[in-house]
Amino acid sequence: MPQSTPLFSAESYFSTQLPPSSLEHDIAGVKEFVRRQKEERRTVVLVTSGGTTVPLELNVVRFLDNFSAGTRGATSAEYFLKAGYAVIFMHRQFSLQPFSRHYSHSTNPFLDFLEIERGTDQLSPVASDSSPESSQICVTPSKRKHLLEILTAYKAVYAAGTLHTLTFVTVNDYLWLLRAVSQELSVLRRKAMYYLAAAVSDFFLPRQKMSEHKIQSGKGSLHIEMDQVPKILKPMVDDWTGKDGFIVSFKLETDPALLVPKAQTSLQRYGHQVVIGNDLNRRKFEVVFISRKEALTSASEGTSFESTPPYAEFWLKIDPHDPSKEIEEDIVAELVKRHEVWIAGAEAPIN
Amino acid sequence: MPQSTPLFSAESYFSTQLPPSSLEHDIAGVKEFVRRQKEERRTVVLVTSGGTTVPLELNVVRFLDNFSAGTRGATSAEYFLKAGYAVIFMHRQFSLQPFSRHYSHSTNPFLDFLEIERGTDQLSPVASDSSPESSQICVTPSKRKHLLEILTAYKAVYAAGTLHTLTFVTVNDYLWLLRAVSQELSVLRRKAMYYLAAAVSDFFLPRQKMSEHKIQSGKGSLHIEMDQVPKILKPMVDDWTGKDGFIVSFKLETDPALLVPKAQTSLQRYGHQVVIGNDLNRRKFEVVFISRKEALTSASEGTSFESTPPYAEFWLKIDPHDPSKEIEEDIVAELVKRHEVWIAGAEAPIN
Repeated sequence: MPQSTPLFSAESYFSTQLPPSSLEHDIAGVKEFVRRQKEERRTVVLVTSGGTTVPLELNVVRFLDNFSAGTRGATSAEYFLKAGYAVIFMHRQFSLQPFSRHYSHSTNPFLDFLEIERGTDQLSPVASDSSPESSQICVTPSKRKHLLEILTAYKAVYAAGTLHTLTFVTVNDYLWLLRAVSQELSVLRRKAMYYLAAAVSDFFLPRQKMSEHKIQSGKGSLHIEMDQVPKILKPMVDDWTGKDGFIVSFKLETDPALLVPKAQTSLQRYGHQVVIGNDLNRRKFEVVFISRKEALTSASEGTSFESTPPYAEFWLKIDPHDPSKEIEEDIVAELVKRHEVWIAGAEAPIN
Repeated sequence: MPQSTPLFSAESYFSTQLPPSSLEHDIAGVKEFVRRQKEERRTVVLVTSGGTTVPLELNVVRFLDNFSAGTRGATSAEYFLKAGYAVIFMHRQFSLQPFSRHYSHSTNPFLDFLEIERGTDQLSPVASDSSPESSQICVTPSKRKHLLEILTAYKAVYAAGTLHTLTFVTVNDYLWLLRAVSQELSVLRRKAMYYLAAAVSDFFLPRQKMSEHKIQSGKGSLHIEMDQVPKILKPMVDDWTGKDGFIVSFKLETDPALLVPKAQTSLQRYGHQVVIGNDLNRRKFEVVFISRKEALTSASEGTSFESTPPYAEFWLKIDPHDPSKEIEEDIVAELVKRHEVWIAGAEAPIN
């Protein structure tokens, strides 16, 4: 029987694992970004997106990964920006990003809608007859309108300086970054929202257990024994965000029967503001918001906790067959409303 | 003690695991592509690229992955196309592809070099003053030349129909696809090359061992026990490719001392044409070709095997600090030469 190891707490995690080498540089950038948003009196949301990895070797050849293209995070970030928020987009390197997400090289490659105009102004797919100097590159007419919309929004965000991008790969990168970014954002008090859409590894290999070189195959079966990643929502709520942040976490389940109970358990256990539950196979058109009942309105209700459930369930559904509608538009709209209530409630005591 | 399970052979693998649902459709496309290339008398190369995954659950939430952006495969595919080959590009979904690889959304996003020209013909980063109908999208002057080169090559390949793209995700997808594609390509006899640059999982979870739903955390440590993936180079060389294909495999190592010995062992064990060895940390500027000595020339050499090694070691190195040079250009040039010898040697008996 393998020797049982004590569980890592957040504290013991950070005292035994090493920070990523980019941490100092990343946090300097975040500090400056947050300072400027505070000056410009903006609300800021940290959006985490994509899956974290657990490398099996120090010289990484293999790793355990969490399934996540980053669609939820990247799409939500765009709607937050549209709603006037500044966004810190902390995402898995190479996963989807706001704006460029519309032009995935696999599903909608931009090279397919660029055309070469020869010097004589005749449109032609091949530029063999014209000199390079006279050739122009233009956008296929049918694609122009949509690209112009995206490009205009992209450039506006760049000009306003409201999007700050960070990347992580491993769960270790992610945990160190999340803590540090949350601490920087805590100066914004209630005006900071935390939208934790990343798919974070539940298990990891402590540095002390990792092999240096590629684990050699040819030795029969492979046994991997991993430790549980400490639950960081607790220190995040109680400590890193200064207790004032509006924290939204996600619960992804494959068994629909577990979805609401587990979301409720999470909210009860950590004491944050919203858990958004989604079923893996329905997440593009249906989510459920779990929150504490008294948090929904700014006035208190005379609720009797013996006879009514303490948790509100708010189901958001869209038409799964409408290709022009993205559920993140409605998710963000609902959260913006709730965040406004949260910010307004700063004078009133919160449970 | 866990019960020891017998190793999977390629045969027992295919008789116990299920083919991907897309297999039939994929192979119909390959069959047609190969038929056309045969008519047009082209050499064809199958380029495999990117890492394979081993899902841990049937409803995939977590998976084991192999580190591979697909740079080697995507870059090589471009050079093969340039050299006049037709290419079947069998890659990990969302990994790098020929041509679009130059415009990674993370490192060189194309949105950064598009500009909006207002109707009055004045260049402006913001189109707020002009109506959408009169706005044009153009390419930043400094980026035009390079994009024009890529776009021209991309459109030429599209017009000639010399690139066929397939995707895989899991190691199961990969194995079924590799076998089926190889069998289709075998009709081309010696004119088919197989460039196996994909990072294939060494271990997997047989369907019978997978859980249906997300493995629940909160149960202490996670134990994963995996079976070895059968070595498919043997059936590939002996069977699927019809014994005539020019097969190039890769060996990636993190310990430099193991590189050449393991590459030689592989060549000896499977009997194919070339093993390209690369050290994880040096692979962008240095590789070694391992092949059998008599295969290098069309004339036989009077070699004495007792005193000289039976394997030739050919080191390819480029200047690591030259940003304009890609080692794949030289790798492909060398393989094209060797493939020509292979094709010419069709009349002569091969060892």
